[in-house]
Amino acid sequence: MGRTLTYPKRTSNTVNRYRHRATYDLGAIHGIINSSQVLHVSFNPGPSDPFPTILPMIGQMGSFDYPSSGINEPLDCYLHGYVSSRIMNLARASDEGLPICVAASKVDGLVLSLTPNSHSYNYRSAVLHGYAKPVTDEEEKVWAMQLITNSVVTNRWEHSRIPPDSAEMSSTVILKARIVDGSGKIRDGSVSDERKDTGNEEVTHRVWTGVVPVWENFGEPIPSPENRVSDVPDHIASFIKRKNEQNRVYAEDAVKVQLPAEEQH
Amino acid sequence: MGRTLTYPKRTSNTVNRYRHRATYDLGAIHGIINSSQVLHVSFNPGPSDPFPTILPMIGQMGSFDYPSSGINEPLDCYLHGYVSSRIMNLARASDEGLPICVAASKVDGLVLSLTPNSHSYNYRSAVLHGYAKPVTDEEEKVWAMQLITNSVVTNRWEHSRIPPDSAEMSSTVILKARIVDGSGKIRDGSVSDERKDTGNEEVTHRVWTGVVPVWENFGEPIPSPENRVSDVPDHIASFIKRKNEQNRVYAEDAVKVQLPAEEQH
Repeated sequence: MGRTLTYPKRTSNTVNRYRHRATYDLGAIHGIINSSQVLHVSFNPGPSDPFPTILPMIGQMGSFDYPSSGINEPLDCYLHGYVSSRIMNLARASDEGLPICVAASKVDGLVLSLTPNSHSYNYRSAVLHGYAKPVTDEEEKVWAMQLITNSVVTNRWEHSRIPPDSAEMSSTVILKARIVDGSGKIRDGSVSDERKDTGNEEVTHRVWTGVVPVWENFGEPIPSPENRVSDVPDHIASFIKRKNEQNRVYAEDAVKVQLPAEEQH
Repeated sequence: MGRTLTYPKRTSNTVNRYRHRATYDLGAIHGIINSSQVLHVSFNPGPSDPFPTILPMIGQMGSFDYPSSGINEPLDCYLHGYVSSRIMNLARASDEGLPICVAASKVDGLVLSLTPNSHSYNYRSAVLHGYAKPVTDEEEKVWAMQLITNSVVTNRWEHSRIPPDSAEMSSTVILKARIVDGSGKIRDGSVSDERKDTGNEEVTHRVWTGVVPVWENFGEPIPSPENRVSDVPDHIASFIKRKNEQNRVYAEDAVKVQLPAEEQH
């Protein structure tokens, strides 16, 4: 308690624009990653290709070595997803791991102001840099699969057919990224216009300003044709109810945050 | 009509995994980009940095030279956003443009199957590679600003204080990426389990399977403290109503799509 760990500021992760919204706190950054359904993972395919590329993947921060670690303590990034053989081969072949960037962004509101230039989003975003290697230890791999499955729906792992059999274990690949730096950005509050416009009555009486909250909404579960369980189980129903409420309240409450005058835009 | 343009398959954009869900059609890929609130843009900061990095940005596909181009014709990618000076300086300094990767992903549903391994998302994702340069022509820049503003809320541009003044023009930067290749992936349908599990009654009578649809939901607009327009204007109210309906219907209809047997997973 009372201690806030922060990522070191290096050239690669120092936020130059909107500095006031930047955070280097591990807890804030890890929280954005862990609440994102999709992570965008960037890597360089090789020296002959000028372009970095991006894969959408599912992932979570966690610590297998120190499972009691809190969200604001040093954690690894475990990734499972639409892993093309390219990223896996590159990660497997590299000695210290494949250099990757992991990004997560959530839009919380459309900030509609007087002028197009002062339009914005309320949002949360996080970026991590690290070295990725495939997890080879079987126990750690199952632990990470459980961590990631339960990030999709809380407690889903134990409500499914487990443990994975040997064919499933060998067809699944989990990447573990050792994080070297990270940063986050958060924008909340209402609109912020410049005095030249807020003092112009023609404009202020014509242009509506405010925020449209935005959130991920989960709908009614649709059973598969093969489903044999009559009722939607509580671990799914309560997850949907809780997330919809949490997401809506976050997006609406974000609008109410008051920024100090010098931090507005 | 009757002609479908596709991006060339190069090593960098060929989808190796889940090949059956891949698309190289310009229309499908551009549609995913244009309906995404946030794009993830990756670039390499420089030779001394081993990591590519990712910025969340707002962007749209469009053609200034051929404004009547349809979504399935060759288009440029215009980007406006949380542009750190680093990406701008790199793009400005490069002769043929900064090599970037642009990615967009949308989750349409949680696919909850019998085993953790066959869990999946219904989703749409797109990736583009191209060379980015700042737009210097003023007319093209205003055109792109309008394109991007109206992607946030349809027709918002003409309902705000326009045109941008010279200070706003010079403080705004728009990147234009000339696209060299692209690919998309789409997953829809219901769950797909293996026979070893669907034939196991203990499992099928215990584990609920189906899809939880997911979509971006827009809430009630919250006026800013400075707002002087009493009613939420129709361009905002109708946008919210239309998008919420479109998003919900897409997520729910995606579950109903029948995949050919050999394409399921």
